[in-house]
Amino acid sequence: MIDHTHAATASSWVPGADAHTDFPIQNLPLGIFSPGDGVRRLGVAIGDHILDLAAVAQHFPAETVALVVGQQTLNPLFSAPSALRVALRHAIFGLLSDGAFQPSVAPSLHKAADCVVHMPMAVRDYTDFYAGIHHARSVGSLLRPDNPLLPNYKYIPVGYHGRASSIRPTGTAVVRPNGQIRPKHDEAPAVGPTMRLDYEVEIGLWAAGQSELGKPIPISEAAQHIGGLCLLNDWSARDIQAWEYQPLGPFLGKNFATTISPWVITTEALAPFRTGLASRSEGDPAPLPYLDDAEDAANGLFNVFIEVAILSPAMKARGDRPHVVGRTYLRHLYWTPAQMVAHHTINGCDLAAGDLLGTGTISGPGKSSRGSLMELTLGGKCTFELPCGGKRTFLEDGDEVVLTGYAETGNYRRIGFGTCRAEIQPAPKI
Amino acid sequence: MIDHTHAATASSWVPGADAHTDFPIQNLPLGIFSPGDGVRRLGVAIGDHILDLAAVAQHFPAETVALVVGQQTLNPLFSAPSALRVALRHAIFGLLSDGAFQPSVAPSLHKAADCVVHMPMAVRDYTDFYAGIHHARSVGSLLRPDNPLLPNYKYIPVGYHGRASSIRPTGTAVVRPNGQIRPKHDEAPAVGPTMRLDYEVEIGLWAAGQSELGKPIPISEAAQHIGGLCLLNDWSARDIQAWEYQPLGPFLGKNFATTISPWVITTEALAPFRTGLASRSEGDPAPLPYLDDAEDAANGLFNVFIEVAILSPAMKARGDRPHVVGRTYLRHLYWTPAQMVAHHTINGCDLAAGDLLGTGTISGPGKSSRGSLMELTLGGKCTFELPCGGKRTFLEDGDEVVLTGYAETGNYRRIGFGTCRAEIQPAPKI
Repeated sequence: MIDHTHAATASSWVPGADAHTDFPIQNLPLGIFSPGDGVRRLGVAIGDHILDLAAVAQHFPAETVALVVGQQTLNPLFSAPSALRVALRHAIFGLLSDGAFQPSVAPSLHKAADCVVHMPMAVRDYTDFYAGIHHARSVGSLLRPDNPLLPNYKYIPVGYHGRASSIRPTGTAVVRPNGQIRPKHDEAPAVGPTMRLDYEVEIGLWAAGQSELGKPIPISEAAQHIGGLCLLNDWSARDIQAWEYQPLGPFLGKNFATTISPWVITTEALAPFRTGLASRSEGDPAPLPYLDDAEDAANGLFNVFIEVAILSPAMKARGDRPHVVGRTYLRHLYWTPAQMVAHHTINGCDLAAGDLLGTGTISGPGKSSRGSLMELTLGGKCTFELPCGGKRTFLEDGDEVVLTGYAETGNYRRIGFGTCRAEIQPAPKI
Repeated sequence: MIDHTHAATASSWVPGADAHTDFPIQNLPLGIFSPGDGVRRLGVAIGDHILDLAAVAQHFPAETVALVVGQQTLNPLFSAPSALRVALRHAIFGLLSDGAFQPSVAPSLHKAADCVVHMPMAVRDYTDFYAGIHHARSVGSLLRPDNPLLPNYKYIPVGYHGRASSIRPTGTAVVRPNGQIRPKHDEAPAVGPTMRLDYEVEIGLWAAGQSELGKPIPISEAAQHIGGLCLLNDWSARDIQAWEYQPLGPFLGKNFATTISPWVITTEALAPFRTGLASRSEGDPAPLPYLDDAEDAANGLFNVFIEVAILSPAMKARGDRPHVVGRTYLRHLYWTPAQMVAHHTINGCDLAAGDLLGTGTISGPGKSSRGSLMELTLGGKCTFELPCGGKRTFLEDGDEVVLTGYAETGNYRRIGFGTCRAEIQPAPKI
């Protein structure tokens, strides 16, 4: 059955919403914004505008109103049963597609350019997975050429905990971190700014609902615990990371900043774009029962394309567009979001709205689809060129990294993710 | 200058508060409790009672009242400047020591036995360090007999991010986790309950104030960013951990539960118990400048004694007391709390009230001072005896692990930490 909110023929009376945009009426992503008055509130992006949801809440199903009005984060809405988000989506679709609502709803639209977008949720816990097998293999091959993938990789959706407090929405500058760095192996470390600042192209998965501590989420129910997606740049300081990470994993090489796109692209909007795992090979071990679900293997991912680009200060001065350095697809992952959820909770760890799960770097098999500079420059051994004569191994001060992405398939309208961008500022003196 | 709230001669009119107790008037630990009505509120433990702070707030300095009245966590109070917590401490000391206040204040005392204690703060981010050098060395020697300490250990206060959502106050049962376990090296993993469930004896450090993302906290100011201490049991499933932890560190082997003692023993109460680092050896590298502070090296730790004990179901049935299996001191750490704070923020990572830092397992040099069963049983190779004929390598269902601790020195009254205890429940069927 085709949900009418996905129909390619659906259109909106909002000016520009039917043009080339990340946010057509089929998308309706949720976020938190503030217009001129500075007060945070729930919004839906539509074309170049943002609809203030609280201002039109009289049109919403009664049981959703308290989740919208007076809230400054999406946590309550994503804590609620998904049926309420579906009902809200249909109500918003009705308001923005039916011209009869234009007179009463149009005054609650704000030009996006005049608004500030904020973090969509208060992040509870942030987990970063390592589900991009091409990334794991190419980073592994730099360290262990004969044995790039560790023995656990095809059994475990490997993950670790990241820092929730330093996650910021697009547009927030990233300060180059200082840290302990060893100039050479066997030399004593010194403290200074990272010389190997990198990005990592990921998708962020926003958890929904609430599981109970001590109770695993079965794989058959796991997909329901993901409410929406965003772009995520897991900034990494490779030299700090290399010296610190044994035996307990990455810490200061990662936790100085994580940048996300601020709109939650809901799994309802992404429903037509479901696709299966593409990276499993013949002979790979079957997933253990708690990770094994035929429906999930066939439909557990989304057909999302992601592009990463760099804009140097020289390019910016000349008015250039960001220069694309990598193009990749979410389906290159080895594990689905549902498998990540089932694994995360198999030990009884609880999961709830506000939890953000990063997929891990999503590289593809080819050189043009690398999701980090570590891979693109073979650990800093090669350089690459930017327009205006810029040569890079890693990022320099003033560089801006821009992630964009969209879901695409067959007869549906593209669903865009918006932008995830941030500029590097110089390290503070210490 | 001796702060009068520390004087050993100070006494309270509260019945029993001058007897043998963790909570004499010199302590005044802060926490969140609910009496019969179930409403959470701020309290101070005094002897066997808890004082409802909001109920006596008319006696407090005006600028502290909003941090106390109507709050359900300590986050606002610990976000505020430390001078306000000092002022509040002095006001509470006055109320509970001066008999003139007894008639008006006594009705706001609740018997602790009739109350429920809760998490003192909403945990923002949880970081676990690895600052116990005897633990690092003895665990390392199980894996690498010739080279137990990794090269970074004496340069970096090694740490990693843990799970905030699964931290619980004393008394909450811990469900034995299921997870992937390899029966033997080179065999395929299977899923089932951990067979190597362990505790780890740590101190939790509650952050105070608020630092700005991108701005390191200098070592000279770092101690002010710790507001108080608690006992912390970093439960660990050794078999799950062993299979999962490469290359990104511990995850499901840890994040199923962390238990803390619920009272925040303030750094104001602990001021007389400051002591220096005891575990640095001649020839160790000097701390890098951002970790180096002479005053901190001399006074950066606290003289806290910690004891870990086990109570088996058989012992419980017989009415035994918990059987002590380890006794250790906070001063066995290799790094001070201020060094942990300075390191945590050197890359610009922000730190704020609600952040909880675990020290890492605090073992001492001798066999009686092991802070985990991993160390006590040499990785499960040896057994130890409990009363009633119980033999153990790791924990069994129904076992209760009990941490207690106190600060002690010279002419001051002991400052107790209360209890951090939890019982193991069987793993759920999966």
